Amino acid sequence: MIHVGVLGATGAVGQRFVQLLANHPWFTLSTLTASDRSAGKSYGSVVNWRLDSPFPESVKDLVVSPTTVDAVKDCDIVFSALPADIATTLESDIADAGVGVFSNASSHRMAADVPLMIAEVNPEHAALIDVQKKNHNRDGFIVTNPNCSTIMLATALAPLMKFPFTTINVATMQAISGAGFDGVPAFGIYDNVIPYIGSEEEKMSREANKILGTFDGTQIAGAPFTVSASCNRVPVIDGHTLNVWIDVAATPDEVIEAFRTWQPPFAGLPTQPEKTILYLPDENRPQPRLDRNRGNGMTVSVGRVRDGIRFVAMGHNTIRGAAGASVLNAELLHTKKYF
Amino acid sequence: MIHVGVLGATGAVGQRFVQLLANHPWFTLSTLTASDRSAGKSYGSVVNWRLDSPFPESVKDLVVSPTTVDAVKDCDIVFSALPADIATTLESDIADAGVGVFSNASSHRMAADVPLMIAEVNPEHAALIDVQKKNHNRDGFIVTNPNCSTIMLATALAPLMKFPFTTINVATMQAISGAGFDGVPAFGIYDNVIPYIGSEEEKMSREANKILGTFDGTQIAGAPFTVSASCNRVPVIDGHTLNVWIDVAATPDEVIEAFRTWQPPFAGLPTQPEKTILYLPDENRPQPRLDRNRGNGMTVSVGRVRDGIRFVAMGHNTIRGAAGASVLNAELLHTKKYF
Amino acid sequence: MIHVGVLGATGAVGQRFVQLLANHPWFTLSTLTASDRSAGKSYGSVVNWRLDSPFPESVKDLVVSPTTVDAVKDCDIVFSALPADIATTLESDIADAGVGVFSNASSHRMAADVPLMIAEVNPEHAALIDVQKKNHNRDGFIVTNPNCSTIMLATALAPLMKFPFTTINVATMQAISGAGFDGVPAFGIYDNVIPYIGSEEEKMSREANKILGTFDGTQIAGAPFTVSASCNRVPVIDGHTLNVWIDVAATPDEVIEAFRTWQPPFAGLPTQPEKTILYLPDENRPQPRLDRNRGNGMTVSVGRVRDGIRFVAMGHNTIRGAAGASVLNAELLHTKKYF
Amino acid sequence: MIHVGVLGATGAVGQRFVQLLANHPWFTLSTLTASDRSAGKSYGSVVNWRLDSPFPESVKDLVVSPTTVDAVKDCDIVFSALPADIATTLESDIADAGVGVFSNASSHRMAADVPLMIAEVNPEHAALIDVQKKNHNRDGFIVTNPNCSTIMLATALAPLMKFPFTTINVATMQAISGAGFDGVPAFGIYDNVIPYIGSEEEKMSREANKILGTFDGTQIAGAPFTVSASCNRVPVIDGHTLNVWIDVAATPDEVIEAFRTWQPPFAGLPTQPEKTILYLPDENRPQPRLDRNRGNGMTVSVGRVRDGIRFVAMGHNTIRGAAGASVLNAELLHTKKYF
Repeated sequence: MIHVGVLGATGAVGQRFVQLLANHPWFTLSTLTASDRSAGKSYGSVVNWRLDSPFPESVKDLVVSPTTVDAVKDCDIVFSALPADIATTLESDIADAGVGVFSNASSHRMAADVPLMIAEVNPEHAALIDVQKKNHNRDGFIVTNPNCSTIMLATALAPLMKFPFTTINVATMQAISGAGFDGVPAFGIYDNVIPYIGSEEEKMSREANKILGTFDGTQIAGAPFTVSASCNRVPVIDGHTLNVWIDVAATPDEVIEAFRTWQPPFAGLPTQPEKTILYLPDENRPQPRLDRNRGNGMTVSVGRVRDGIRFVAMGHNTIRGAAGASVLNAELLHTKKYF
Repeated sequence: MIHVGVLGATGAVGQRFVQLLANHPWFTLSTLTASDRSAGKSYGSVVNWRLDSPFPESVKDLVVSPTTVDAVKDCDIVFSALPADIATTLESDIADAGVGVFSNASSHRMAADVPLMIAEVNPEHAALIDVQKKNHNRDGFIVTNPNCSTIMLATALAPLMKFPFTTINVATMQAISGAGFDGVPAFGIYDNVIPYIGSEEEKMSREANKILGTFDGTQIAGAPFTVSASCNRVPVIDGHTLNVWIDVAATPDEVIEAFRTWQPPFAGLPTQPEKTILYLPDENRPQPRLDRNRGNGMTVSVGRVRDGIRFVAMGHNTIRGAAGASVLNAELLHTKKYF
Repeated sequence: MIHVGVLGATGAVGQRFVQLLANHPWFTLSTLTASDRSAGKSYGSVVNWRLDSPFPESVKDLVVSPTTVDAVKDCDIVFSALPADIATTLESDIADAGVGVFSNASSHRMAADVPLMIAEVNPEHAALIDVQKKNHNRDGFIVTNPNCSTIMLATALAPLMKFPFTTINVATMQAISGAGFDGVPAFGIYDNVIPYIGSEEEKMSREANKILGTFDGTQIAGAPFTVSASCNRVPVIDGHTLNVWIDVAATPDEVIEAFRTWQPPFAGLPTQPEKTILYLPDENRPQPRLDRNRGNGMTVSVGRVRDGIRFVAMGHNTIRGAAGASVLNAELLHTKKYF
Repeated sequence: MIHVGVLGATGAVGQRFVQLLANHPWFTLSTLTASDRSAGKSYGSVVNWRLDSPFPESVKDLVVSPTTVDAVKDCDIVFSALPADIATTLESDIADAGVGVFSNASSHRMAADVPLMIAEVNPEHAALIDVQKKNHNRDGFIVTNPNCSTIMLATALAPLMKFPFTTINVATMQAISGAGFDGVPAFGIYDNVIPYIGSEEEKMSREANKILGTFDGTQIAGAPFTVSASCNRVPVIDGHTLNVWIDVAATPDEVIEAFRTWQPPFAGLPTQPEKTILYLPDENRPQPRLDRNRGNGMTVSVGRVRDGIRFVAMGHNTIRGAAGASVLNAELLHTKKYF
């Protein structure tokens, strides 16, 4: 059995990790870390479970550890839901201690020797781990998953990479949960749109190029397109919706066909949905409330492909856009014998 | 005194017309029309007043008329909040009967001899009325105001017309009230985004070209740019927010300066705001709940001008985007002696 | 196998019936009825599936029937999601035609010989069917389930019937879905509370007395308490929350103990939850978004028991409060050999 | 001119104080205090104005003071929007320094010699100030206004005090703004009801008795009724709605008549609404979004009076329920020459 830990297990993404790992067929949840004041107490007694799925009783009595290298050094891998400021040093130290780190934090995403992975989209980037281990002379490693909005965009672009394009404009309508449980005060977002999310637009631009870039065995050459994003917070609980414009050399029918027929290079991993990309033909879909839970929250739904080329993409931001993407990365790397 | 009527006075836009006209310094509200079952009863007894401003007592006892030519033939002008299917014929008949029609309906917006006006943006188009009167041999006339989203876009573009540009991508996040009081069921929009509004995207494309087109005294030549829109309904009560991309040959600072310094060719009309366009420097503005009521709902707020060129525009959809725009058109044409 | 039909299968409650019956272990969904314009078409082609669970493919090709006696006369039982005005006559005719009707409509709830049942609360009322069959000389029968708010109240009161009490005050905060998919316009309820739901308060008063009344083999004597209700619509999608005051001769601890230990007289029916009543000790629970799906939407959660006696009760209004309650009634009556 | 200060001028209640005082006919806003990091900077540069009314330019350049006695010792009176923990000592020290304190904090509300006032309801309690000055040998004084929900209840009860009653049950549906701008995370309240607000129910019980109690020149005897409250947070921005049950010896018509005819003992103060209590006859009113701004947010709307006696009361929680009530108290005490 593979022993896994979750760093920052009480927050919005941390609870999603726990939810996805509590009954995982391959991974055994053995360590949950949180702030020092929670350390030493049972997870059930310190967590304020705020997901609408029942609290997983199996982890109720797990004693919470402090968020340190020591706490996780006996894990085979850890999943990180830490804020970037804490993640930067700690994740490196954990990797240096020989543990594999699957991180949802932004700290190391753009590091030249750290894979920024969406399992079905750029699995070949996993080999960057070997470069990273050599560079840092470490037995462990860090693998990151992209920003929650970027995942929806980059996944939807994967089937279109066979067509030439150079420019993407994307407007996002992002859910409240993307800022964490307490990140968005109700007074600010209710009956409102906030047309700004700090550093989100920059993340979408740079991360999409890396994810869809080409790996030559040594380094990644960024994909030859530019992303111009406008990010908005809207009164939606879960599910990020994107309006995309792309100057792709294809007809709407060709784009739809590409969405319909694209397949990832592997199948059957525990957290992998039946369809990574689902094309919805109805003129008013996808919609976050009706479509965010498709594929257990791991499917990116696309629709409204029309001249422009314009289309709409939507996915669950804390599952496909965060914890679920990270767990799937770990499942893939386990099949590749990285741990 | 100028006697005015409102066609379809009980709906979302109709109530806004009544609110704006009840105490108007130039216009006397003398006729309110509604469905046949309301005709003959007092407006106060048939209207379900659903605006958050107090019901204007002055119109409480006004007897509602049926929506016919006869009912308004003694008005100097009428404001139309009719649905397009009814408006098409009736508005023409009313104009033929010698009455000036200021219409919020889409029926006649694209007719070659009907002005599609935003008073401060293309006042010179008013002269199309003379062409229209000749073509139809009518004493009355029809003047239309644009679709509610188009008004926000076209107004924000006015200051930029001095720079060359050819392509605009725009994503809209539109308020519930844009579909009328009962147009959007709560079950459908709550905790959700609906990425489709019937025919809205087509309206934005064609109407923007006409509004910003040039009038040679005989006809309007559409403006030489293309608009590619993606329209979304979001859980906001009032206020349409736009994310705009424009390939304009100007720097962000030049665009901001254009927004700051632009002035309409006239000032001081009763419904005209102090600033038609207000540039907000804060990185997270404009926001519908905080900014929709600026200039009594008649100001279009813009912000977040950055490379791309990308910017955000927002305005009150049932005031600046509908009833208020129409009333201001009437005020302008009164100063031009069209009635 | 037992062949079942759903009357009015495209609405909010009708879709819940289909969702619960599509893969039912005992019942085979063989007939779905809807309006005449849908009749003759496949269910998949006419239904606008608006639940957030995936559309059940197994019923996609079922041909929709008109809502008539003939359409269901070969069913063993039917579930009715009809509006009261249609249900009154049609449900009687179907029962006269020998079919068992499990109705969510209010039409027959208060009829002296029609059981108004919550399976776990008053199963003995099922015997009213024999009286009804004799009275009407019919082979079929009608069994009703209570109004959605009443179900939450009456279920929470069941464990307290062993204590004397005479007066109940209850304030409800009811979800949007209680009025059907399109019953509540977003413009009316967003950022708002509507402190009135037509005839809801009267239903709560009279239905609670009948449900908790005693059956002497011939008729039901209403329970000796009065319910005074204040019903409110709030901006919640699913889940009715109740604030209850009851002058019960018991301490808060005794009431909590009663909630904790109460058991229905049977167990293990397919739609029956593990716990019909779940006491939540946290001071801020139950909450509709976090607790409405407990027991697959069939559990009534209670909490905040304190002096007064005051407590809070909450349940899913279209599952426990409508379709699920009706299906559970049918499961119970099947074990009692009524069909 | 009377120089006034606002303690804690940047929060939800503090901004309401500033909004109401910026252009006050009697009071000059001369001091605004906030946290130490804001002290020394202009109010315009430190406040994040989050009300939907325009920011009052007149106070833009006012230099923010630290929240200390020294900062306000030259004011005639101060309005306190401080949290209770800070208010307890500081408000006493300010009163001892000779300044009149009008406090929205709960710290001193129940002190035997501190008036807990709703200006129109219990103006005679103002005389407690003389007792207080003697007890504390102070030239200044503290006057408090009740908790936001209690104000709506106590105001609605004022016209009913002429009838005997002993028991009140009240369920509240309270707005987000009642917890301050950032007090309610959107993730927690959206599509939800939270049936608990810390210590709110206790405040409603004890404060209502004091407000409606009788003052014998020395002390207040609490009113002879008990209040049993259930408090809920609902997804509404502003406006607390109450469902009230009262065992009053009067018919619904008598209660309605009492609401209609009740008048406060004075009129014409600047912040006083035309009607303190407004009875709305429509069966579905009052509603927070449609009625909260009546009387510039200072009117308590009541309706749905029916057997029970049950009725609904609603008012704006940060104006009538907080800042506005406090300002009106100050206006009344100025006419009584307390400063």
